Amino acid sequence: MDDAGQTFTHRQVPAKTLHPPTTVSPQLRRSISNLAAAPRLAMDGMPQTADAWRAFVATADAQALALAPILASQFPHTVNKTTIAGVTAREITPGTLDPAKAGRLLINLHGGGYVLNGGEASTGEAILGAHYSGMKVIAVDYRMAPDHPFPAAVDDAVAVWRAVIAEYEPASVGVFGTSAGGGLTLALVLKLKELGLPLPGALAPSTPWTDLTGASDSYAVNAEVDGIFSSFDTIGRAMAAVYAGEAGVSHPLVSPIFGDFSGFPPTILTTGTRDILLSDTVRAYRAMRAAGVEARLEVHEAMSHAEYIYAFDSPESAVAFSDIAAFFDRHLVG
Amino acid sequence: MDDAGQTFTHRQVPAKTLHPPTTVSPQLRRSISNLAAAPRLAMDGMPQTADAWRAFVATADAQALALAPILASQFPHTVNKTTIAGVTAREITPGTLDPAKAGRLLINLHGGGYVLNGGEASTGEAILGAHYSGMKVIAVDYRMAPDHPFPAAVDDAVAVWRAVIAEYEPASVGVFGTSAGGGLTLALVLKLKELGLPLPGALAPSTPWTDLTGASDSYAVNAEVDGIFSSFDTIGRAMAAVYAGEAGVSHPLVSPIFGDFSGFPPTILTTGTRDILLSDTVRAYRAMRAAGVEARLEVHEAMSHAEYIYAFDSPESAVAFSDIAAFFDRHLVG
Repeated sequence: MDDAGQTFTHRQVPAKTLHPPTTVSPQLRRSISNLAAAPRLAMDGMPQTADAWRAFVATADAQALALAPILASQFPHTVNKTTIAGVTAREITPGTLDPAKAGRLLINLHGGGYVLNGGEASTGEAILGAHYSGMKVIAVDYRMAPDHPFPAAVDDAVAVWRAVIAEYEPASVGVFGTSAGGGLTLALVLKLKELGLPLPGALAPSTPWTDLTGASDSYAVNAEVDGIFSSFDTIGRAMAAVYAGEAGVSHPLVSPIFGDFSGFPPTILTTGTRDILLSDTVRAYRAMRAAGVEARLEVHEAMSHAEYIYAFDSPESAVAFSDIAAFFDRHLVG
Repeated sequence: MDDAGQTFTHRQVPAKTLHPPTTVSPQLRRSISNLAAAPRLAMDGMPQTADAWRAFVATADAQALALAPILASQFPHTVNKTTIAGVTAREITPGTLDPAKAGRLLINLHGGGYVLNGGEASTGEAILGAHYSGMKVIAVDYRMAPDHPFPAAVDDAVAVWRAVIAEYEPASVGVFGTSAGGGLTLALVLKLKELGLPLPGALAPSTPWTDLTGASDSYAVNAEVDGIFSSFDTIGRAMAAVYAGEAGVSHPLVSPIFGDFSGFPPTILTTGTRDILLSDTVRAYRAMRAAGVEARLEVHEAMSHAEYIYAFDSPESAVAFSDIAAFFDRHLVG
């Protein structure tokens, strides 16, 4: 029975065993198998205090950093750590810069549920984006929970945006990000509309975290199916609460699915069939289309949340980033 | 261990209860609840003989026909039963024909796993397609298994195509279909390429059945999640076998995912996040993109296989058919 007194029937889905499918590349199949072999987060093991969060973050970020040397060897680049409008950032220059795009810039907002992947761990997706686009990428090391809950991340993104558009034509700048970084990409543009500031030329929120209330259908359908973000009810809900703080998870700058997408720039959204944020992505895509935004949806077979970043040796990862780069090529001006 | 001697780890997904989500319209939520309340097909109840198939088909088609009066009252139209090149067909004329599109035509290939929805049950999707496009639709009542296995359906589609292009500019004709009808849409165009015949101007295969071998990841992930096509291992595999016959399920005109999509016309593909053919749809989309085809992917929150046809009173159904109609508007000539 719901609020309106209607009775609904629930669906019982039996336990199942999922095999790494033969319908993907050998590299992605190996990644899917490795994820299945990785230890799970315990239901009752989520951090309860700021110190416990910091310990959790340190462990997770160390894993992300361990991948960095492999990533660097396959995708040569230079990193220049800097401060933009008081916000720490890293300027990523790919091994091969496309001179035809010298007047353009990409801004990356990293993922990690607004708690993970800060500092040196913030550049993974930015490095891949720089490689596939041949463009310089500013990886924003925005402030995060538990020390800096909402709206610190949005404020930092806006501050960097103001500084960037003092130097670049706004329509020549693209913004991209995964998961929380995808949600923050959308929240940034909602905030820019509110402030009456110019908008970016194009957006690429990938598997964006758009609904921190947990209502999306795929939180249930893909629970424990997704090998990376396996359960909203453990890690997801805890991150949402510690990030949202007093604003609450329904605030449109926390959960951009509740925002108004009218007037948004052209947007490409990427997800996978095993992604726990499949619905967060699909719902944002549909809301954008309903608002008249030029939007494209890209879905990859058997991919879990953000797996295109971690399975960076797979052809599927190359397709995902190449599609995003081609979309920026088409829509950024200058 | 697979053929190459590699060891893969499988993922164990616990049993779960899926609630009709609040993230869809009230009409779609009601449809999802009704599907959950419907009786399931028994694992061991699949037809084993031609007579058993015919009894199964009669029961299923009676259910489809029971919806016809409601559909007719909401989407006024006329039906003219006819024969085209020896193939039974029904010409559907919507209540409001768009005079600007008088030189254009749509061909619909109905769904039903190559066994169901023949005869008077073959017009449901065609009526909705005619309504939302304002165009005349030829609903092809192609021959089906068990009496007429592959290649009868493909042969009938080709015969109708030859007759249609004697009267219409091929680039002014669009072909659409759901499930087996979506697979048959793709198989028709593969066959037309083989025959060196002109191709349609645009295609709309929705939740197309492209892999009858059962390899797609969503056959496992969305088993018993999908409220309409709940299990490949019961009904799906049985229909695949009785349709494919001696050609086998890997034949590219039976499972078009194994075909070559290069040179295909612009194509829009539609699916849902609970769809057991989510992967069949996504894989076809990716293969088309890889072949350089102009393709678009549309995914709907919490929708099961082909639910846009049955939940025809939902705004989501209107969006799905309107997207297809707009795609035909953009890509058909004349």
